[in-house]
Amino acid sequence: MYDTVIVGSGAAGLSAAIYASRAELDFVVLEREALGGGQIINTVSVDNYPGLPGTGGFELGQKFEEHAKKLGARIEEASATGIEKKADGTFTVLTSAGEYDTRTVILAAGATHSRLGVPGEEELAGAGVSYCATCDGAFFRGKTAVVVGGGDVAAGDALFLARGCSRVYVVHRRDSLRAAAVLASQMGRTPNIEMKWNSVVTEIGGNGRVEYVRLRNVQTGEETDLPADACFIAVGIVPQTDAFSRTVRVDEKGYIVAGEDTVTSEPGIFAAGDIRTKRLRQVVTAAADGANAVTAVQDFLVRKQR
Amino acid sequence: MYDTVIVGSGAAGLSAAIYASRAELDFVVLEREALGGGQIINTVSVDNYPGLPGTGGFELGQKFEEHAKKLGARIEEASATGIEKKADGTFTVLTSAGEYDTRTVILAAGATHSRLGVPGEEELAGAGVSYCATCDGAFFRGKTAVVVGGGDVAAGDALFLARGCSRVYVVHRRDSLRAAAVLASQMGRTPNIEMKWNSVVTEIGGNGRVEYVRLRNVQTGEETDLPADACFIAVGIVPQTDAFSRTVRVDEKGYIVAGEDTVTSEPGIFAAGDIRTKRLRQVVTAAADGANAVTAVQDFLVRKQR
Repeated sequence: MYDTVIVGSGAAGLSAAIYASRAELDFVVLEREALGGGQIINTVSVDNYPGLPGTGGFELGQKFEEHAKKLGARIEEASATGIEKKADGTFTVLTSAGEYDTRTVILAAGATHSRLGVPGEEELAGAGVSYCATCDGAFFRGKTAVVVGGGDVAAGDALFLARGCSRVYVVHRRDSLRAAAVLASQMGRTPNIEMKWNSVVTEIGGNGRVEYVRLRNVQTGEETDLPADACFIAVGIVPQTDAFSRTVRVDEKGYIVAGEDTVTSEPGIFAAGDIRTKRLRQVVTAAADGANAVTAVQDFLVRKQR
Repeated sequence: MYDTVIVGSGAAGLSAAIYASRAELDFVVLEREALGGGQIINTVSVDNYPGLPGTGGFELGQKFEEHAKKLGARIEEASATGIEKKADGTFTVLTSAGEYDTRTVILAAGATHSRLGVPGEEELAGAGVSYCATCDGAFFRGKTAVVVGGGDVAAGDALFLARGCSRVYVVHRRDSLRAAAVLASQMGRTPNIEMKWNSVVTEIGGNGRVEYVRLRNVQTGEETDLPADACFIAVGIVPQTDAFSRTVRVDEKGYIVAGEDTVTSEPGIFAAGDIRTKRLRQVVTAAADGANAVTAVQDFLVRKQR
């Protein structure tokens, strides 16, 4: 019987592990991927986690993991499939690797990239279609890449790809970027980046590999085929809450309803990081959630003992 | 006319500066001490800021400052004395170094150490009475030190002092520590740390320097004089809100009333870090506040432009 089971090993889960270690709780971190670290490990460079400027996303994920392990955290490979509440008020976390009995649960499973849902996206995945510029960008040196999206991730991907690719098109449905101004400015100063404003991707095509990306201008309705060797998709995230949405309340987008205190609709279950309802999803706000979740767990365990 | 003026250069203020730089806002950070960095710089070792395990508090404060400066943040020495709201909805921050006109304000002035308020405390400050073990601990190698308090800071101070001092007494008003369990356990295993439970300090005495600390047992009422060379006081914090409590709503303890979104009772003024009402005051939660405050500033400026 654990004091808490932490589901997920991104910034929120590993921060919770750090705080749980220091609170001397009996806990385990569950991670469904062989390689943990959360979304951040797919990010080219993170320049806004205070104290660690210009750190690669993969490196930052590793620093978090090393920190947690140094304090004694144990991370097990297991994909959570659900949570059962028992008569005595404790929980069983059901996973691909067996059951975990625990007094509390910290849900920190984060989010994953959204898909476009257009023809060719699934068929050409790994053949030019990618959701990770850091992972796959190097395969397209001297080639033409399309980046889809207008946020920080899309902007970071475009700037990264522009260093190696001959040309980078950025396709965005609006006429201005959501990305941080500093990234938008850099993009404007990068000669081999070209914006395709007010445009959406309607198809990704090619014979066994990406050869073109079809755009539709949302204002004129005009369709054009952009010759390209790769299509990097960065159009947002989807919370990983399918396994938990019967147990705790989620909003219309699937995010677990929880405030800064990480308290969910189910006493004893807490939600930290990108998985919960919040204004700003960043490494530092996820890390803060991990700390708050452990405080909430400690408060809950103390109240139960009384 | 600045987009925002950030008052304070602790973890919250510098994180706000990092985010404001990346948002390309026109801003300045005001710090009343010649040396910024906030409370953290007085902390022996910070082992719970994710990604930077076992970092000295001073070093961590410097890392934050270097990060902000690398991104172009300007820090000016100025002590804020008040905020005036102008007819056009902008603000003037009044300081010891002149006036700053700005569209928004981020209050991140943090908190300072509480005083005990006992005879001898003020008279012997700097002569054995200290609020900073890292700053002054080295002067008491081989001597006897008293630490007053039961939280993380007191525990960290005691463990730090025990490495150099022959004996460390920890005076705590309760019969158990509030400090993280890992710190409490370490204290229990440190032979030259002795707990004085259920005790408060009623006087610090000596002829020109600390010679004894007078304790009163809160259960028996018994008073005893503990011979000691130093008295390190770590009994909590007081928010630095005197200059702002006429402008924004504060709670009964003086903290600015604001949630995770950092929004205060005055539109355009935001509160980040230890200065606001919150459950858990830590470096990582202050840093998250800085990010959220800049997001709130951006939202506010966009709404005003419309």
